[in-house]
Amino acid sequence: MTLITKAFGVKEENKPLEPLEIQRRPVGDNDVKIDIIYCGVCHSDIHTARNEWGGSKYPVVPGHEIIGRVAAIGIGVKKFKVGDLVGVGCMVDSCQECNQCKNDLEQFCEKGATYTYNSKDKHIEGQRTFGGYSNEIVVDKEFVLNIPENIDPAAAAPLLCAGITTWSPLKHWNVKKGDKVGVIGLGGLGHMGVKFANALGAHVVMITTSPSKIEDAKKLGAHEVLISKDTEAMKAQKQSFDFILNTIPVGHKMDPYISLLKNDATMVLVGAIEPLEPFHGGALIRGRKRISGSLIGGIKETQEMLDFCGEHNIVSDIEMIDIKNINEAYDRVVKADVKYRFVIDMASLKG
Amino acid sequence: MTLITKAFGVKEENKPLEPLEIQRRPVGDNDVKIDIIYCGVCHSDIHTARNEWGGSKYPVVPGHEIIGRVAAIGIGVKKFKVGDLVGVGCMVDSCQECNQCKNDLEQFCEKGATYTYNSKDKHIEGQRTFGGYSNEIVVDKEFVLNIPENIDPAAAAPLLCAGITTWSPLKHWNVKKGDKVGVIGLGGLGHMGVKFANALGAHVVMITTSPSKIEDAKKLGAHEVLISKDTEAMKAQKQSFDFILNTIPVGHKMDPYISLLKNDATMVLVGAIEPLEPFHGGALIRGRKRISGSLIGGIKETQEMLDFCGEHNIVSDIEMIDIKNINEAYDRVVKADVKYRFVIDMASLKG
Repeated sequence: MTLITKAFGVKEENKPLEPLEIQRRPVGDNDVKIDIIYCGVCHSDIHTARNEWGGSKYPVVPGHEIIGRVAAIGIGVKKFKVGDLVGVGCMVDSCQECNQCKNDLEQFCEKGATYTYNSKDKHIEGQRTFGGYSNEIVVDKEFVLNIPENIDPAAAAPLLCAGITTWSPLKHWNVKKGDKVGVIGLGGLGHMGVKFANALGAHVVMITTSPSKIEDAKKLGAHEVLISKDTEAMKAQKQSFDFILNTIPVGHKMDPYISLLKNDATMVLVGAIEPLEPFHGGALIRGRKRISGSLIGGIKETQEMLDFCGEHNIVSDIEMIDIKNINEAYDRVVKADVKYRFVIDMASLKG
Repeated sequence: MTLITKAFGVKEENKPLEPLEIQRRPVGDNDVKIDIIYCGVCHSDIHTARNEWGGSKYPVVPGHEIIGRVAAIGIGVKKFKVGDLVGVGCMVDSCQECNQCKNDLEQFCEKGATYTYNSKDKHIEGQRTFGGYSNEIVVDKEFVLNIPENIDPAAAAPLLCAGITTWSPLKHWNVKKGDKVGVIGLGGLGHMGVKFANALGAHVVMITTSPSKIEDAKKLGAHEVLISKDTEAMKAQKQSFDFILNTIPVGHKMDPYISLLKNDATMVLVGAIEPLEPFHGGALIRGRKRISGSLIGGIKETQEMLDFCGEHNIVSDIEMIDIKNINEAYDRVVKADVKYRFVIDMASLKG
């Protein structure tokens, strides 16, 4: 039985978000139907709503930081029961058969993961996937995550994208107690990076252009703040970092940050999905330094991150909004005027 | 007793190389005096002779691919005896005490390695170090290498720079039997990269702009040649390389090469000590790909490389020249008109 549900999205390019009715597929044997309670607002939502990366097909219903309760399950679903607090992140499906999927790296599925919005919907012909700015969603059980009941579910929403995006590289590059870790940029991603690096026992240095962020960064768990425009301060910390998580969301000069790395250390890009400025080959050659990138994380790793958040009581810092204020919220995200993530109270779509 | 020896170098900026007389230090307790037989011509020699990197102090006597026989040893030298075939590469000294030196990474010495030419000479006040375009050199025993007697000593000269520069990253990133390895650029570095990767058991793909190089690349040990201007051929090899050694000596577009890497695979820059063109952050983010750099190699690793060359009978392909033709040879190197390394017969300086 096909389901019609309320949503909020962009009907055609260059329009604001507005109320929509969308179709969800019937609950299949391996599906979980979720009543959405909260949905985080990620910068990718805006890029897609506004077709800034190209490839958006309208209508677009964004939202991939979804928290809700299980409303129904298919006959093949054993891991969840009605009423469970669950989450859905950036992906809702992948081939489950390729080497990447078998290695719990669904985000790199060789056949292409199905993203939570603006991907081809395998189940409803001619339709794109629709995200979490809606009251209900139907998702394959393999892409549904358990949310610990002891953390604030609204503030848990951003863990599904901002959380895993910063957690995955910290774990993959084995950040550990005593490491000196830099987190560049204090936004939605950066503030989670600081929390995680701190919880993993690292000595955390927030690297930012803004002296106004010092106090906040320290509250979030940074042991030091390095102002990147202060060339003397940058020089004093040259060659001293074991790992740098670079959350800058736009193209930028990398040489000053590369110079902060110890020899053989890595800086990982998670924000700038766009052309970077030229950097000097010698910056990598002298010291065998490394630059890499990281894309969200696999489902298994996402669950591990959520479990860690339950144990360490880690959530995002959020500002809650009603769905009717989403367009204004987008403008504020673009101006980096949010601490540190908007989360939509989806009850506001029901009324 | 100070030694005056014949050399060939640049007396002042913008002049050609010409005959010089230079001073070498007396043989100290830990020194080895070497009669130089051959010296390779590296592109770095030209950059320094012409002050293209800045920082050249004149006179400049280039040459850091030195092969010779031990002519005298200090009282503290046990490892070498008069008559031994030896080599000297890019470094003649380092602090020997810092963590980098203790980890056999003298090239990253925290106090700065003493390079074979145009570094401050610790032993002769006010003088820069003078390289191998000369008849004799005096070097600390820790920076003298054994050259296997079974390989052609002239063709062994380029192993001291081009050899170790390509060997070190192949070993550090653990290139092994069955790996698919790309070598970008068929010059002095690239042709050694092909030989080493082949000897290590990899499936070697020479990546070049020039179809004219296909035959040579295969003779050198490439199993395949990929023409980088052929977009269809590049597309067919997308996401298939375990490792790429990038020897391009100038700034260049990296996106097409990054796209050749498998997920989690690394491309290492060894040639471009200059600004690179902008690349797309998404190229690294999607697939957790890595870019790094590598600078020559430590002394221990250089000896291992030379021993491997002895066992596998690997040397450089060279064109031998007399010292009087060095200026013409420089112009040919700049035009990439050499297969694949000039080596100076230093007997030609004696006459």
